[in-house]
Amino acid sequence: MPDKTPVSDSSRWDATSVIIQKRDGKALPTDAIRWFIQNYTDGLVADEQAAALCMAVFLNGLDSDELSTWTEAMIDSGERTDLSPVRRPTVDKHSTGGVGDKVSLILVPLLIACGAAVPQLGGRGLGHTGGTIDKLQSHAGFDPFLTPEQLIEQCNTVGGVIAAAGTRIAPADAKLYQLRDITGTVASIPLIASSIMSKKIAGGTESLVLDVKVGAGAFMTNIEDATLLAQTMVQIGKDAGVNTSALLTQMDVPLGRMVGNTLEVDESIEVMRGGGPADLIDVTVALAEEMVRLAGLDADPASILASGETLAIYRQIVKAQGGDPTAPLPRASNTHEVLAPSTGWLAQMNALTIGIASMRLGAGRARKEDEIDYGAGIECVRKPGERVQAGEPIFRLYASDEERFDLASSLCLEAIEISDDEPSPRAIVLKHIT
Amino acid sequence: MPDKTPVSDSSRWDATSVIIQKRDGKALPTDAIRWFIQNYTDGLVADEQAAALCMAVFLNGLDSDELSTWTEAMIDSGERTDLSPVRRPTVDKHSTGGVGDKVSLILVPLLIACGAAVPQLGGRGLGHTGGTIDKLQSHAGFDPFLTPEQLIEQCNTVGGVIAAAGTRIAPADAKLYQLRDITGTVASIPLIASSIMSKKIAGGTESLVLDVKVGAGAFMTNIEDATLLAQTMVQIGKDAGVNTSALLTQMDVPLGRMVGNTLEVDESIEVMRGGGPADLIDVTVALAEEMVRLAGLDADPASILASGETLAIYRQIVKAQGGDPTAPLPRASNTHEVLAPSTGWLAQMNALTIGIASMRLGAGRARKEDEIDYGAGIECVRKPGERVQAGEPIFRLYASDEERFDLASSLCLEAIEISDDEPSPRAIVLKHIT
Repeated sequence: MPDKTPVSDSSRWDATSVIIQKRDGKALPTDAIRWFIQNYTDGLVADEQAAALCMAVFLNGLDSDELSTWTEAMIDSGERTDLSPVRRPTVDKHSTGGVGDKVSLILVPLLIACGAAVPQLGGRGLGHTGGTIDKLQSHAGFDPFLTPEQLIEQCNTVGGVIAAAGTRIAPADAKLYQLRDITGTVASIPLIASSIMSKKIAGGTESLVLDVKVGAGAFMTNIEDATLLAQTMVQIGKDAGVNTSALLTQMDVPLGRMVGNTLEVDESIEVMRGGGPADLIDVTVALAEEMVRLAGLDADPASILASGETLAIYRQIVKAQGGDPTAPLPRASNTHEVLAPSTGWLAQMNALTIGIASMRLGAGRARKEDEIDYGAGIECVRKPGERVQAGEPIFRLYASDEERFDLASSLCLEAIEISDDEPSPRAIVLKHIT
Repeated sequence: MPDKTPVSDSSRWDATSVIIQKRDGKALPTDAIRWFIQNYTDGLVADEQAAALCMAVFLNGLDSDELSTWTEAMIDSGERTDLSPVRRPTVDKHSTGGVGDKVSLILVPLLIACGAAVPQLGGRGLGHTGGTIDKLQSHAGFDPFLTPEQLIEQCNTVGGVIAAAGTRIAPADAKLYQLRDITGTVASIPLIASSIMSKKIAGGTESLVLDVKVGAGAFMTNIEDATLLAQTMVQIGKDAGVNTSALLTQMDVPLGRMVGNTLEVDESIEVMRGGGPADLIDVTVALAEEMVRLAGLDADPASILASGETLAIYRQIVKAQGGDPTAPLPRASNTHEVLAPSTGWLAQMNALTIGIASMRLGAGRARKEDEIDYGAGIECVRKPGERVQAGEPIFRLYASDEERFDLASSLCLEAIEISDDEPSPRAIVLKHIT
């Protein structure tokens, strides 16, 4: 059944022909992908045409050549930051997103302490996952928007930045991401991989470590999908000349004990002072070691982190970007304890459900235009592997609006499982992909 | 890989959840289809969401229950015409579209002469295929827009109408059809079948004969696809209580000798006077016999057509809808002959290529907003199965703009094949599906 779409005279490609090619399971030539992405960015290809193509890609895939071209086309829709004026080796990290994932707050100053320059481009939270930029905006005045010149300058003075990607970086991706969000085309490995990698490659880093989260609270719920995503992204990075590797890390349960913006800043500072929960430290150190390795540095992140010197660098970053690191952080006006319904071993704590509960308390956004309550969130007083006593608190909830506690409490209770048997300890770093 | 799309609180369904369900190959429940189609019609579901769903339907299909619901939802997006005040049995015909297909112009008055009422809703041409409404608008003043009351009145006086579907009939389909046209989702059997049948069922006819065209100039190029489309539409019709059957007819070569609006009116009038080309008469009579059978009438269409009495009814229809059947028709100011490059038997004449050539002469539209040159088109001086002599005309081209002849001439020469062997005669009616 052929379509009778007239092919445009003025170009070898038109939107419908590109869509039909992918719909029919054929590989898209380089010029077709470049034509489509550029014209979509410029508003000449309509949203409904891009949506149809995304669904065809979702169902029929992209081969590795198509994927490299697709990613390059998204990079070329904007500017590529030239970091050659930065005098230290540059290395960045990207996490696919989880619940309680505040690793970047610690990792950026830690890598600077190890001798790297870290030009980190962070994101905002959406749905049940938090965003690094939101967490840092708990510091009044913190400005995530830097010009390329400011970014380079700060990499050479403080040693790194935590900045928003801004409109210069892969504008095609920004547009496509919003479209995918409402058209059921988010959970596609080639589309996720090209989205992440286009931004990171355009950011100009020499080396990149990917933290691919696996489990109930992650986009990838099983290790096979997560492995394929990690391999796909590592390949795209290498094809583009970026030293790339990935760790698969556990996201069945929240990372650390704190979920919510200010609460996560608190916990990060605790880790930078030499304390904090073991799972968070383990993931942070594992990622730091991999970054040190890729950047060719000679440093021991674990001992540097334990020394406490990272915190001073963290404060310099906040200050350099307009924040006051000594000012009091925004706090929720109300707390509420969720008590253990029985005595036993805490065996499960579903990260997705906790993430949704935290969002419902005001810590996150259901839609991107929603306001955030920076002080809101959840403290996991107990974590899986620990004993709980009936009637003792398992969670402490924080919110400015007391009416939000009811729903969040029942979600928290839904998220847990109390068992008579001691659960076996779980590994936090699951796999290393180079 | 689950998506983390928040499901709307106010309804069981939201657009993204419906898209994801079909994307993942699951059947859509009745309420999901109805919710999506109604909200798309009302503008609450975005074009990009409908495009993603159409692509998912294209690739994953609709089962027969989903298809019935989808069609009903499109019907219920508008009004269903109540033809019970019409005093004769009502019967309509729909063609899936071809090149030189002017059958409706003859068939509607012929069925009226046989004793039926014919509430025909016709369409406009797009791409290489012509539209019945365009052809009738060769008559100055002809108005295809009738209210339901006018339609019923004219069915009871003249005996039938040839009207445009208008905005009351299946507005969801009108919106979806435009969307599919630019998103590579036209050539899907469930989407074509529901589009056609929603309009025809909403039109209120008791009986319906489908002319499913097969071959180079049709949407269905092979008999398997055409059979499946015909069976699908016949089933939808029967499910909705409409007496429905289908003929598969040949569309490898243009039907009759004339392609283009005024030229096709001329040829139709010739047939209604008792003359005209055999293939056109054969298809018209076969469809008329099937319509007579479904409507339960006792009449012999072949002898009625040969008697010439049909032409008076045709003129009554044109007059009743504001046209002057005796006024001169618009004519192209220029003609151009395409000569046979060699001597032999004319073995092929690709209908798609001829349709495109006619469109390029000004007879059709590349885009729906294009103007039509009513007098433009192509006369096939010779048809496959006939002898041609080198240097004698095979085609006579008509256009107001002489500059269009070059491209159209070379297309016409591309379309034909001259052979030393006499081609075997081809059947025009290929299959009957009840």
